[in-house]
Amino acid sequence: MEEDLEFIELFEIYKGLLTEKQRELFSSRYIYDLTLTEIAEEDGGSRQNVFDAIKKVKAKLVEYESVLGLRSKYSQIKEATREKDQELHEKIIEIIGR
Amino acid sequence: MEEDLEFIELFEIYKGLLTEKQRELFSSRYIYDLTLTEIAEEDGGSRQNVFDAIKKVKAKLVEYESVLGLRSKYSQIKEATREKDQELHEKIIEIIGR
Repeated sequence: MEEDLEFIELFEIYKGLLTEKQRELFSSRYIYDLTLTEIAEEDGGSRQNVFDAIKKVKAKLVEYESVLGLRSKYSQIKEATREKDQELHEKIIEIIGR
Repeated sequence: MEEDLEFIELFEIYKGLLTEKQRELFSSRYIYDLTLTEIAEEDGGSRQNVFDAIKKVKAKLVEYESVLGLRSKYSQIKEATREKDQELHEKIIEIIGR
C-alpha cells in the first residue's frame, strides 16, 4: 500500500512521458483500483498481459526517477521552503503543481 | 546562438532521458562545437544523417519540456527564492543541480 502510494506519486510526476495506453493501464489499476481481471476484461486481453504491461509501466517510472530524480528534488525543495517561509512554500507547491 | 543556449539548458536538464548515442551527438555539436562534417567523419556517416539525428534530439528535448516543463519550473522556483532569501536560494540551486 505504501509502495502503491509511491508509484502513484511517481505517476503524477512522470505521466507526461508515458503513452496514452500506459497512462490508462496505470490509472485503471492504481487510481480507479480495478483488479487485473477487470482491466483484462475491458481490454479484451489476458490477465497476465495486463500484469506484464503494468509492471513495465512501473519499471519506466522507477527509471525516470533514477535519471531525473524529481520526486526527491521536489520533496527536498518543499522541505527547505517549508522551514523558511509559509508564503513561499505555498508558491513553490503551486509552481511544482503538487 | 541564444537558441543554442536554450537547447543546451534543456539538454542539461533532460539528458538522462536520451540514449548514449543521442547525448554524444548533441554534445559534439553544441558542447564541443564540432561541425556537422566533423561529426559525420568521426561517426563514419553522412553529414545529412548527422543533421537529421541532431534535429531529432532537439525535437525530443522540446517534447520533454512541453510535458514536464522543468526548465520553466526551475526558473520560477529560483526566481521566487532569489527574492526571498539568499541562503535558501543557494540551497535550492544545489538541490536542482544547476
